[in-house]
Amino acid sequence: MAESHIGIWLIGAKGGVATTTIMGLCALKKGLIGTAGLVSSLPQFQHLQMPDWNQFVVAGHDIRSVPLAEEAGRLVTESHTVRPEMIDQCREELARIDRRIRPGTLQKVGPTITELADAQIPGDRSPRHCVDRLRGDLAEFAEAENLDHVVVVNVASTEPAVEMDLIAPRWAELQPLLDRPNECPLPASSLYAIAALQSGNSYVNFTPSLGSAPPAIDELARLNGTRHVGCDGKTGETLLKSVLAPMFARRNLQVMSWVGHNIFGNLDGKVLDDPVNKQTKLQSKDRLLHEILDSRPQTHVSIEYIESLGDWKTAWDHVHFRGFLGVPMALQFTWQGCDSVLAAPLVLDLVRFTEAARRRGQTGLLNFLASFFKSPLGVSEHRFDRQFRMLENWAADKR
Amino acid sequence: MAESHIGIWLIGAKGGVATTTIMGLCALKKGLIGTAGLVSSLPQFQHLQMPDWNQFVVAGHDIRSVPLAEEAGRLVTESHTVRPEMIDQCREELARIDRRIRPGTLQKVGPTITELADAQIPGDRSPRHCVDRLRGDLAEFAEAENLDHVVVVNVASTEPAVEMDLIAPRWAELQPLLDRPNECPLPASSLYAIAALQSGNSYVNFTPSLGSAPPAIDELARLNGTRHVGCDGKTGETLLKSVLAPMFARRNLQVMSWVGHNIFGNLDGKVLDDPVNKQTKLQSKDRLLHEILDSRPQTHVSIEYIESLGDWKTAWDHVHFRGFLGVPMALQFTWQGCDSVLAAPLVLDLVRFTEAARRRGQTGLLNFLASFFKSPLGVSEHRFDRQFRMLENWAADKR
Amino acid sequence: MAESHIGIWLIGAKGGVATTTIMGLCALKKGLIGTAGLVSSLPQFQHLQMPDWNQFVVAGHDIRSVPLAEEAGRLVTESHTVRPEMIDQCREELARIDRRIRPGTLQKVGPTITELADAQIPGDRSPRHCVDRLRGDLAEFAEAENLDHVVVVNVASTEPAVEMDLIAPRWAELQPLLDRPNECPLPASSLYAIAALQSGNSYVNFTPSLGSAPPAIDELARLNGTRHVGCDGKTGETLLKSVLAPMFARRNLQVMSWVGHNIFGNLDGKVLDDPVNKQTKLQSKDRLLHEILDSRPQTHVSIEYIESLGDWKTAWDHVHFRGFLGVPMALQFTWQGCDSVLAAPLVLDLVRFTEAARRRGQTGLLNFLASFFKSPLGVSEHRFDRQFRMLENWAADKR
Amino acid sequence: MAESHIGIWLIGAKGGVATTTIMGLCALKKGLIGTAGLVSSLPQFQHLQMPDWNQFVVAGHDIRSVPLAEEAGRLVTESHTVRPEMIDQCREELARIDRRIRPGTLQKVGPTITELADAQIPGDRSPRHCVDRLRGDLAEFAEAENLDHVVVVNVASTEPAVEMDLIAPRWAELQPLLDRPNECPLPASSLYAIAALQSGNSYVNFTPSLGSAPPAIDELARLNGTRHVGCDGKTGETLLKSVLAPMFARRNLQVMSWVGHNIFGNLDGKVLDDPVNKQTKLQSKDRLLHEILDSRPQTHVSIEYIESLGDWKTAWDHVHFRGFLGVPMALQFTWQGCDSVLAAPLVLDLVRFTEAARRRGQTGLLNFLASFFKSPLGVSEHRFDRQFRMLENWAADKR
Repeated sequence: MAESHIGIWLIGAKGGVATTTIMGLCALKKGLIGTAGLVSSLPQFQHLQMPDWNQFVVAGHDIRSVPLAEEAGRLVTESHTVRPEMIDQCREELARIDRRIRPGTLQKVGPTITELADAQIPGDRSPRHCVDRLRGDLAEFAEAENLDHVVVVNVASTEPAVEMDLIAPRWAELQPLLDRPNECPLPASSLYAIAALQSGNSYVNFTPSLGSAPPAIDELARLNGTRHVGCDGKTGETLLKSVLAPMFARRNLQVMSWVGHNIFGNLDGKVLDDPVNKQTKLQSKDRLLHEILDSRPQTHVSIEYIESLGDWKTAWDHVHFRGFLGVPMALQFTWQGCDSVLAAPLVLDLVRFTEAARRRGQTGLLNFLASFFKSPLGVSEHRFDRQFRMLENWAADKR
Repeated sequence: MAESHIGIWLIGAKGGVATTTIMGLCALKKGLIGTAGLVSSLPQFQHLQMPDWNQFVVAGHDIRSVPLAEEAGRLVTESHTVRPEMIDQCREELARIDRRIRPGTLQKVGPTITELADAQIPGDRSPRHCVDRLRGDLAEFAEAENLDHVVVVNVASTEPAVEMDLIAPRWAELQPLLDRPNECPLPASSLYAIAALQSGNSYVNFTPSLGSAPPAIDELARLNGTRHVGCDGKTGETLLKSVLAPMFARRNLQVMSWVGHNIFGNLDGKVLDDPVNKQTKLQSKDRLLHEILDSRPQTHVSIEYIESLGDWKTAWDHVHFRGFLGVPMALQFTWQGCDSVLAAPLVLDLVRFTEAARRRGQTGLLNFLASFFKSPLGVSEHRFDRQFRMLENWAADKR
Repeated sequence: MAESHIGIWLIGAKGGVATTTIMGLCALKKGLIGTAGLVSSLPQFQHLQMPDWNQFVVAGHDIRSVPLAEEAGRLVTESHTVRPEMIDQCREELARIDRRIRPGTLQKVGPTITELADAQIPGDRSPRHCVDRLRGDLAEFAEAENLDHVVVVNVASTEPAVEMDLIAPRWAELQPLLDRPNECPLPASSLYAIAALQSGNSYVNFTPSLGSAPPAIDELARLNGTRHVGCDGKTGETLLKSVLAPMFARRNLQVMSWVGHNIFGNLDGKVLDDPVNKQTKLQSKDRLLHEILDSRPQTHVSIEYIESLGDWKTAWDHVHFRGFLGVPMALQFTWQGCDSVLAAPLVLDLVRFTEAARRRGQTGLLNFLASFFKSPLGVSEHRFDRQFRMLENWAADKR
Repeated sequence: MAESHIGIWLIGAKGGVATTTIMGLCALKKGLIGTAGLVSSLPQFQHLQMPDWNQFVVAGHDIRSVPLAEEAGRLVTESHTVRPEMIDQCREELARIDRRIRPGTLQKVGPTITELADAQIPGDRSPRHCVDRLRGDLAEFAEAENLDHVVVVNVASTEPAVEMDLIAPRWAELQPLLDRPNECPLPASSLYAIAALQSGNSYVNFTPSLGSAPPAIDELARLNGTRHVGCDGKTGETLLKSVLAPMFARRNLQVMSWVGHNIFGNLDGKVLDDPVNKQTKLQSKDRLLHEILDSRPQTHVSIEYIESLGDWKTAWDHVHFRGFLGVPMALQFTWQGCDSVLAAPLVLDLVRFTEAARRRGQTGLLNFLASFFKSPLGVSEHRFDRQFRMLENWAADKR
């Protein structure tokens, strides 16, 4: 295995999550940090055939032209999540990765994301041309770095919601639309997914954007003998919901209302300040309560862009529930976490577990990874402990 | 099954938990309330052979002389947990139960509890005489009410801690000490346990007091073909710890410190204001974090008696943890619940599950009930989801 | 003074605030409760010529037909703010007041409030006819009860915002519009104000609705030798803002953002769930921060209708501020209060202080009452301590 | 004024507060930071004759030998309160100050503080010899730096409480005890105060230690025509208490209980972990509630040393109060601030205001500075707004 290398291709390679992932991976390679936050480093997963940190090579797509080192610098000065000396230690690696970043696509990403773009984005004549261009970028990367495989991870900003029912359910029906710009309903996230899967690589959707969710794209993955998973990384408030809601259910405490307010001020927050993009996210954060709780609670979730908080998200949740004798009681929590720091290790975990699945010959939807997602594709189980058990069982399974 | 009746014998029958249990059971019999808060009413347990609410008859021991109806009245006027009209609807039942309450014992309960006593407590010459008297009370109850079985539940105030290592591990060695008042290390809770088990009844310890924890008393249960379980009902802050701590572990988020402050003002709180009694409780609330978390967190738990809060406990917990890149983050929660209202349904659940175990012929320690306890006897698993799975597996087991 | 009686005329007489005010006044008359929550009962105001509780007679307008006793009953069963026996003790008084309640007006109250109406509301041909009808109700009340004076207090639901600039600034210009239904911009709250002031009575606007805010109506008060004050009772979260914001300013701690989320489920909440009505309220809750703080913070306020909470409002505020060396720090608070219980004593205080001002011969705007309001008319001082000093100074002023 | 220089002599010159004060002053001199957190920089104080930042020269006493630059480095790497480049920019200044720090005294500071000492502390034969040595240090500093005046500020760790009543009330009686080591009740903080005042300098006690509190030492200040003030800087939780408690009083909301839990992990916290030292602090934090509130609330304050938090203190306060109709309600707040960053600007403010008072010829106790202290000497007013008004009035006073 010593010679094998695995590519990590980040969509949104200059965003906060990507930059933190890149800095963290670099620090892991150099032994500058421990394994805190990395699920794949837990004892119960050590027997799996997962690549070492040194076997990973990073590249990606982005729509902004800002140098990666500058974004990394903000992790030091604004979020205080990276120690200043680490920037120096990783400067060369950052420069190498920066040179590998290619312009992405703005297909149906909505005006708020489009406004952020300042890289030279080629004007693709059709979705098909776009997919071909993205595939070319992946192929070039794999060849240049002599890679066995590439895992494409979408960590770009949230796109406006797309009506799933309007998308043809079979790949044979969907794919011709790639040639018809006006009829093709697919946003950027799905074009990246198609590019990844058609070239035999794996696709992970860490955002609530459409990505590989359409059944036709799942079919594409299976047709090509590759794999995908998503969507929307479960990092903070929703993780807590999926941990706490089962407690209420198991104790027969009837949740009457569950209110969650989220405030933060990073680039994602700015994009989510556009109600069109926010809607996609809110659905993903709220739905699971209704799946877990039988008590039909009134739920409310808000996300507000509060600039001063930067990447530090604060969530306040208020749970109002009825116990024995019908007595109302309350649980409140506040969660203060750095969004990128919570997300980045999960990106690395997903890449490693996806690669381990590839080595086992697993194709199609990787639903054993449900515990990582707010809206796990193809999995109706939202209780975190049960989802985590799925991961442990998969890992324990000798194949 | 129609004719069979089951006794519930409450140690501390006039306390807040007992009074709420009694009011709740009465309301269930009359159909005045729903099943919120009752674990045994969840769908997955409906196939079990558990008695109906109407099959239960309540009695108990106490050391105070206050009428039960007066205590129940305080649930209306002070805690606002019981609707005023319910007192009228249950008045006769309360009077009947009140007549069945017998004086308990003050053996090694410590000065703070002793001060609360105002009932006429007989002066037992030795622990043996005390046990015999308590057994007589149980036998009389069973005969008068024509009971198949009695489940004795300790819901009395917390006793000072007893050094377990000093207690002889075999029943044959321990039982002679019952005749030697000066040498016998057993507190009231254990004498009640012995009385219950020797008379073939079941014993449930809902408090952190010693109860049936000594191996010698476990042996007694097995020798007599009966059963016991404990200890310390997991109702609020500790329940949350056992739900949240596994999340940190599973996400490899390294908890550095976990501080929990509890404030409340009921009678239990008054007893816990005595540092000797408090110590027993604090250990029970704190230990599980070290069992669940590998990160060796600094932990701190406090319990303070704040009179104005009455039975409404407020807990504030602050969890400081380290994520990816070593970044420190925090979770805080406040839990506002009524202690007795959280505890009472679990008392009824434990009685029903214990009786279901009896009908299956199960003896000894009922460790499938671990999810109900802060310090489950004989079970090292403290993660709530795993404990709950033990209960579900037991229930699903066809015997 | 023994024979003199003062009327309290409540607009929205069957709402939560009014019902709590009525129950509280009745309980004060009978000595059933203490003076907690009543500012006018503080030692520094005892020398003022204020009427005794027994000198007040209550009546009012409403648009709903529900019996007052039923609304009072909900204070017992839903909010737990009134003890059950108090309903019996006040039943006759409630019935007397209920008979004095007259149908109000739905003039420009918006569809959400209009939907709540089920009383028989007369169809007034013009605003003038409406005002005349309302004046008739007041006159009848004053005569029937032999009153020296009536203080009209608006505690009705919040109306949609009205553009102040469009309203003629002089009474001479405004009053002819009362005859032209299509041109008259005045909502119900202002018609009640005009009716009160034209009949020589006092007007207090406890809501953020327009009321007596237009300069033309202030002029009317002065022309008629009477008085008015408003608007929007400062009861909870905003009170805290006006107490805490000056601390940040005085310590030169630079507030970067202040987020406030309010959740509750009473009738007011339902009306505020209509964005048109909510806007009026949000402005009133938010503005003062910008008045008190020089640091130009980003502010955000939300109000969400969460049914299960009923009249118990929970507010969570997050204040993000910068201290020495530019270091960011945070204050969070949660406020859990019963809205009507916080408002009702202030209604009684405002009536008493307004009557005391009348006895001193004071006319026009009573700006010494600024501490009671979120948006005090004619007062730019929003710091609670300074506003309270205005009240104390006024009281200390010997006239 | 251009040539005049003022000394700042810090007791505990290498502690967190001192180091932050030094870094901040250096940054102010170089224009690297703004004036956030500095009360003396508010507009209403700009007309006062206060020295410019450049006119201050810093030195001090300490009992530890760690280099100042190392302590400053921890502000970068542990508290993240100072930007890394600022260390470089201030390195020379830090070295200069370090060379001016002299060994302090361990007189009656208790074993916990004594254990921290590793500097070469001279063995003074008597308190008198100690005072003389400390005076010598001050004199040498004043001469070397050509200073007009020195303000001595105690920012050392909290000493065990001293029984004030045992201390002779007149200087003539107290001063002979300085020659009798076994009888002299004065701890280090008071010896520093005497040294400062005897040499004609000013003394500010920022800690709850005894300092200049004894009337005899106040007399000494007046005899020597100099001035002093204290004690215990009001930076966080107690500041909030003094801001919020008056609100409850003014609204006649009757506080039933006020619980405050403080957790933090700096050196001060370590010292306060010794119950003897903690007692001094707790009294200072708790007393004011009873001064401000008439409702005789039950109060509880805790301080716990939680290592992982470092200098970042989190306080949780729970206020339980009764409003109209006797209804109980609650306010909770959490305060997350960096202790040294909150304290340091107040140290600079106190120095500047003290110097301004000197220029006005003011001697004795400077009680116009009460708003800065938890336990203001000679001032019974604890309401922050009234205390701040004292400061503003003093400033407005033309002399």
